[in-house]
Amino acid sequence: MRIVRFQLEGREPARGILDNDDQVLSILGDICGQWAPSGERHPLASVRLLAPVQPPNILAIGLNYRGHAHETGHAIPSAPVLFIKATTAVIGPDQPIVLPAAAPDEVDYEAELVVVIGKKARNVSRQDAASHILGYTCGNDVSARDCQLRLDSQWARGKSFDTFAPLGPWIETQVERAGSAIRARLNGVTVQESHTSDLIFDVADLVSYLSHQMTLLPGTVIYTGTPSGVGHAREPNIYLRPGDVVEIEIEGIGVLRNPVVAES
Amino acid sequence: MRIVRFQLEGREPARGILDNDDQVLSILGDICGQWAPSGERHPLASVRLLAPVQPPNILAIGLNYRGHAHETGHAIPSAPVLFIKATTAVIGPDQPIVLPAAAPDEVDYEAELVVVIGKKARNVSRQDAASHILGYTCGNDVSARDCQLRLDSQWARGKSFDTFAPLGPWIETQVERAGSAIRARLNGVTVQESHTSDLIFDVADLVSYLSHQMTLLPGTVIYTGTPSGVGHAREPNIYLRPGDVVEIEIEGIGVLRNPVVAES
Repeated sequence: MRIVRFQLEGREPARGILDNDDQVLSILGDICGQWAPSGERHPLASVRLLAPVQPPNILAIGLNYRGHAHETGHAIPSAPVLFIKATTAVIGPDQPIVLPAAAPDEVDYEAELVVVIGKKARNVSRQDAASHILGYTCGNDVSARDCQLRLDSQWARGKSFDTFAPLGPWIETQVERAGSAIRARLNGVTVQESHTSDLIFDVADLVSYLSHQMTLLPGTVIYTGTPSGVGHAREPNIYLRPGDVVEIEIEGIGVLRNPVVAES
Repeated sequence: MRIVRFQLEGREPARGILDNDDQVLSILGDICGQWAPSGERHPLASVRLLAPVQPPNILAIGLNYRGHAHETGHAIPSAPVLFIKATTAVIGPDQPIVLPAAAPDEVDYEAELVVVIGKKARNVSRQDAASHILGYTCGNDVSARDCQLRLDSQWARGKSFDTFAPLGPWIETQVERAGSAIRARLNGVTVQESHTSDLIFDVADLVSYLSHQMTLLPGTVIYTGTPSGVGHAREPNIYLRPGDVVEIEIEGIGVLRNPVVAES
């Protein structure tokens, strides 16, 4: 099942589920609890999709693919590397990534599988992790490398500029356990290509680990880390420029597409 | 004016303002917008105070007093050092700080002046910062030093265990511009003592700086940094133990008191 948040011209944001991949069935209630169809139905092409979740916390994991740890000169971590992105950074499909005036020059893409928590999780075992997950979406862990790697000791600022947490296009509740191909395309050219089975700490590891550090409330999202191929690790470096288009594609979920603009 | 969030036995959390320092006048509406007294009045002693705000983001500044930068062996920063605490870490006055099972041994206190944003702030000048501030409260930036300084490269986990963001007892909207004495007491003994006029980046600096990095929504809190005297920098080290009581006192605001317990 695919769960969307959407907006019709002049109306409040609403929830829906995709039907037949081209219709949105509007729903009422709590997607993490009780919900039911409202009876309204809209062609997918007629609605504006929003970020599928408004998270109370955005948890993110660094260096969670061997290839990316290697390309950035880091050892394979012995435990998940947690950082936190500001919740104000969330945008949805097709919304622009804004190169911030404070740090416009070294903004980079990171394709990531994102877990959406559905049921409050605290001290959950690896075995019980799945029952606390609502589903999965595509994420782009947009990062200002100058801030993250050179100017600041902490990653928080470089990962938290407004628009630096694209999420979408929807929450897919059924994802193949064996893993999915994950890729990023920049202006149509594939720049990251891997498979979520290459995660060092897999989804169950991460939900269990994080739930032993803090309460994961419904709606919490976990960016699970990015594979190799980020722009900063390329020779020459590639950074996002106004007019670019970034697509994050995860097999079995969909494509999250965002254009890039300068801060006006 | 002092703004509280409170709860009466068996009722939903509510908002109020302090009257005469011993009465709570219940209010209805939005404390960042339109509100009015509900007509209900309760003795302060009869209500349970809650954290005065439920922030969409907890922004926090490291190394913002010279004495603390010095005691931890850091240079004076040339720009504010931002990190982010998980919103799930918030607790109110008298709620226990829980030493997490995952890292119970080196949990430390940090007395901090906390700014509460009242009006959405984006690209705000130093001069306009004050008009975006609702008020101030006391904060304790509780920190697991083993995670923060030895085990993890990022501070996020060590600063984000549940209960690691005590806030309260209320939001004071009028605070002396010249600054206020700030202190921490551990079991009645003063362990930190400084003055908010010693901040390297003052409140206007921080609101302006942060608003140039991201949108500060109403209710956002900014932990402004801690003075010298933290337990980790003492000889011998002092860490929090079950049965301890930590008090954060800021002149003109009040006292935020929290007992310490082990995770059960």
